[in-house]
Amino acid sequence: MFQSFTETASPDQGPARLSALQALLKDRGFDGFLIPRADAHQGEYVAAHDDRLAWLTGFTGSAGWAIALTDRAAVFTDSRYTVQVKAQTADVFERVAWPDTTLGQWLAKALPRGGLAYDPWLLTVAQKRDLEEALPKVTLLASDNLIDALWEDQPAPPRAPAFVQPLDLAGEPHTDKIARLAKDIAPNSAAVITLPDSIAWLLNIRGADIPRNPVAHGFAVLHADARVDLFMDPAKTECLADHLGDSVRILPVEAFLPELASLAGPVQIDAATCPVAVADALGQPVEARDPCVLPKARKNTAELDGTRAAHLRDATAMVRFLAWLDDQPAGRLTEIDVVKQLESERRATNALRDISFDTICGAGEHGAIVHYRVTEGTNRAVQEGELLLVDSGGQYVDGTTDITRTIAIGTPSDEHRDAFTRVLKGMIALSRLRFPAGKSGADIDVLARASLWEAGLDYGHGTGHGVGAYLCVHEGPASISPKGRVPLEAGMILSNEPGFYREGEYGIRIENLIVVEDAPALPRQSVAQMLRFETLTLVPIDRRLIDPGLLTEAELIWLNGYHQRVLDVVGPHVDDAAAAWLALACAPL
Amino acid sequence: MFQSFTETASPDQGPARLSALQALLKDRGFDGFLIPRADAHQGEYVAAHDDRLAWLTGFTGSAGWAIALTDRAAVFTDSRYTVQVKAQTADVFERVAWPDTTLGQWLAKALPRGGLAYDPWLLTVAQKRDLEEALPKVTLLASDNLIDALWEDQPAPPRAPAFVQPLDLAGEPHTDKIARLAKDIAPNSAAVITLPDSIAWLLNIRGADIPRNPVAHGFAVLHADARVDLFMDPAKTECLADHLGDSVRILPVEAFLPELASLAGPVQIDAATCPVAVADALGQPVEARDPCVLPKARKNTAELDGTRAAHLRDATAMVRFLAWLDDQPAGRLTEIDVVKQLESERRATNALRDISFDTICGAGEHGAIVHYRVTEGTNRAVQEGELLLVDSGGQYVDGTTDITRTIAIGTPSDEHRDAFTRVLKGMIALSRLRFPAGKSGADIDVLARASLWEAGLDYGHGTGHGVGAYLCVHEGPASISPKGRVPLEAGMILSNEPGFYREGEYGIRIENLIVVEDAPALPRQSVAQMLRFETLTLVPIDRRLIDPGLLTEAELIWLNGYHQRVLDVVGPHVDDAAAAWLALACAPL
Repeated sequence: MFQSFTETASPDQGPARLSALQALLKDRGFDGFLIPRADAHQGEYVAAHDDRLAWLTGFTGSAGWAIALTDRAAVFTDSRYTVQVKAQTADVFERVAWPDTTLGQWLAKALPRGGLAYDPWLLTVAQKRDLEEALPKVTLLASDNLIDALWEDQPAPPRAPAFVQPLDLAGEPHTDKIARLAKDIAPNSAAVITLPDSIAWLLNIRGADIPRNPVAHGFAVLHADARVDLFMDPAKTECLADHLGDSVRILPVEAFLPELASLAGPVQIDAATCPVAVADALGQPVEARDPCVLPKARKNTAELDGTRAAHLRDATAMVRFLAWLDDQPAGRLTEIDVVKQLESERRATNALRDISFDTICGAGEHGAIVHYRVTEGTNRAVQEGELLLVDSGGQYVDGTTDITRTIAIGTPSDEHRDAFTRVLKGMIALSRLRFPAGKSGADIDVLARASLWEAGLDYGHGTGHGVGAYLCVHEGPASISPKGRVPLEAGMILSNEPGFYREGEYGIRIENLIVVEDAPALPRQSVAQMLRFETLTLVPIDRRLIDPGLLTEAELIWLNGYHQRVLDVVGPHVDDAAAAWLALACAPL
Repeated sequence: MFQSFTETASPDQGPARLSALQALLKDRGFDGFLIPRADAHQGEYVAAHDDRLAWLTGFTGSAGWAIALTDRAAVFTDSRYTVQVKAQTADVFERVAWPDTTLGQWLAKALPRGGLAYDPWLLTVAQKRDLEEALPKVTLLASDNLIDALWEDQPAPPRAPAFVQPLDLAGEPHTDKIARLAKDIAPNSAAVITLPDSIAWLLNIRGADIPRNPVAHGFAVLHADARVDLFMDPAKTECLADHLGDSVRILPVEAFLPELASLAGPVQIDAATCPVAVADALGQPVEARDPCVLPKARKNTAELDGTRAAHLRDATAMVRFLAWLDDQPAGRLTEIDVVKQLESERRATNALRDISFDTICGAGEHGAIVHYRVTEGTNRAVQEGELLLVDSGGQYVDGTTDITRTIAIGTPSDEHRDAFTRVLKGMIALSRLRFPAGKSGADIDVLARASLWEAGLDYGHGTGHGVGAYLCVHEGPASISPKGRVPLEAGMILSNEPGFYREGEYGIRIENLIVVEDAPALPRQSVAQMLRFETLTLVPIDRRLIDPGLLTEAELIWLNGYHQRVLDVVGPHVDDAAAAWLALACAPL
């Protein structure tokens, strides 16, 4: 079982550890120390070795910061974690709502002048710049990590072997990718790559250093002459040498900074993700976006074929799971039971490498907690008349899935059906959309919201994030949200997941993955190039929650067509019992 | 008649005038001179005195630049004027498509180093900064205006008397506005205001210095202690003294720069519109948005009541005009006949102060030229089977109107009806919209386009601009377009004008003015504050061009409700013949 339901940290640990840290600050002559929930690779997950924020404060959320000053301390979390941070941390930590209050704003009052220490591997160039602008009288002091100095039983850094992603799934030899990207690098120059999924994509490798994201920690330098230096622990690279070949030199991580210092001329870094330690070693780097980010987002034919296969496989697991769920009497199952059953169905495909993220399974009022993760402490029964929100996904060798379905347990209320149908109308609006090439997610986000707005409703998150091909389930640079300004391009996989949350009562979200594709020209079309979305996810949407009277004819045609496609494509791959359930679930409305 | 149909400039004049300017450049030791289509107030219209771009080049469009170097010259215009600039200018001027090529980009090649002269009254602080960034090796040299030195029969600057806007229409005494805005200015500081419509709004005055915009040229300084200095030609301010009272000191324009130089401490300017000459006189100004711009955009109750009255009056003129138009045999009228008839109907209200802008009246392929202005040279008959696009408006003492209707002459084609109905669906989508407070025009623009996109169609302009209350028909800061990032607020008047243009064949645009208002809360609403639009324009939309089969039930209900409202409100104000036409035009679909 990949998912666990235990609480791994507690508020009790915080005060003594903070006191020890504050004593160390005084010893060293620092006025404060920054503890981001980050490693040198700025991903969504950190290894146990890097979970310094949880060690110090008890807070286990996926994003946050602590700041320890000599006489006070604070934990910064976003609105997703307002409740969780209170439960997990002791009162010695002030809880600050970020980004309403930024680190710089808080520090400007709490430490208007002085010396603030930080680990230069954990702070990015852009983050340091923001702090310097906000705190003109504070000196930022690079330091060894003070948490590591105190953390006696700190786990070792991960050393899971990296492995080759087969060419038939990657679709392009890594040597071709290297040659293609090297063309955009200034002659005799190089680009430093610190994001593990960029390295994984570029070199057609995967890893297992952190949960949920199949990547190996390391660094790379891409030279303009189409050579790559890969800096990675030798224990992890044993199986890579043959695959990587002559154009990729494998070096130990310890060689990374000395090699950077030896590079001539300006070298390219991505300030948004590059550690300060790397920029400092380079002296005068040039700033540019990580050269892998956009090419990685534009999936090729092999990656899309693999992703479709993964979605069909995942759909069979979801259909068996949903058929099973409908067969259980209301009130008998708990949220943990549901999560376990779903993971066991995915495991039964015999192809599951990991789950894409910890399944979000919220019954009733838990559904309104957007990033709810059930634990033994929060687990509750799934009752008659409630909505059950299940957001989950699988990591398969050929693709990454991410799907949310909201299921009626027993008979839903009129309000449930009204809100669900409005969310569905938003999801269909994007699914059916044609749009001119060059438009970004920000340009189209409102189409997923307008039907909710009509009733005075909305949701507080973006409508969709990028998704990798057997890589991170949250992948940049494109997104569908009011902030998503990267133009959408053919091959980009995105989620389409509007929702509605009635705090303390219920949550609704419907999520399909979609991929951008060229739309064939229509007669008398005047726009040079139009794009559209292919829907990848093939799982029924709960008909019991749909009010057909709220759907337009075009929406009804889309929905019935989608369900027919699900039945045609998935039906032949499930057993008779599940197929019978599927036929009913896909009946036209 | 306000509108004229003559060509006021020709390509013939350009070469000799350019030669004279180039000789003067050499005399003065300059390598070039900038000629923007601008005065010191950066409005859409300039007085004849300031039409230096047309004098030099022959180009009469509403936006553009010329650059004269010692051995070459160029005219920069946007895509609206690509055809016009070729017809109006001689080949000695290179024609540059702006903003595809910016002034800085062109100059970086044409004048990589040297001394470039400019008139510091005509260049804004932001424009100068952009040029300096693009041209690090060019020195920008403030100069007297070289065109004025050559232009022998240059008209005098305008000196039309300014007049008072009555309090019952302005809705707030100017002393209250001054006190309200002064609170946001730093103690002992001041804000310089150079936009004539800002001054007009702040002081409840209007003027007649330029066509179409009822403003008087001048400058103002708003002091933190709620005093205003108004710098304006005494010939224009004779009727203002009693109204303005003790808190507003009237000074001649000549006193402006010396007064600025005497101000202590940092003074606030708006870099986007403030002339370099003003910033230079201040030494070290602080940059902030013109303090009048947002308050002016939020119309008060009196301004909205006035605007509604102006729209009802304008609607009677439009209805009589449309009834007359339907009564003419196809082929008998020219575009100029149509413009004349429409203006005469507006004049017949006995309340027309000016037209809001030169009427755009394009038959057939002329409809596809988004800013077409008919002249005796381009005038053509309006033929059977064509679409006629008429975009026009009136300046009344109580409000400014702007309306576009596209009319079928004879029987429209299926393509006409399909495209028209899609444009209409976009207009209805915004008209019906509820949206959360805080959203901007960029967040909702796509709703006006999605139906066109479905057929591979789009339009190249924004969906809506702000509109003044007996002020400029194009008013900032809010707009409905992918670039409109200013949050929409109650009281803002905007246009709602999607379109579609088939180059060389026809143009379609449907435009109503709308005003943002608070939307009353719905039962179980979860968003704190929702907004919606009230439609101000009350004129039928051509039913012959609507394909009801393309409309959803909600759209049909909106359309029939709108037409019923038009009939109920406007019907009693027109004569029997027009009322009979109106009843048919407003019949339910």
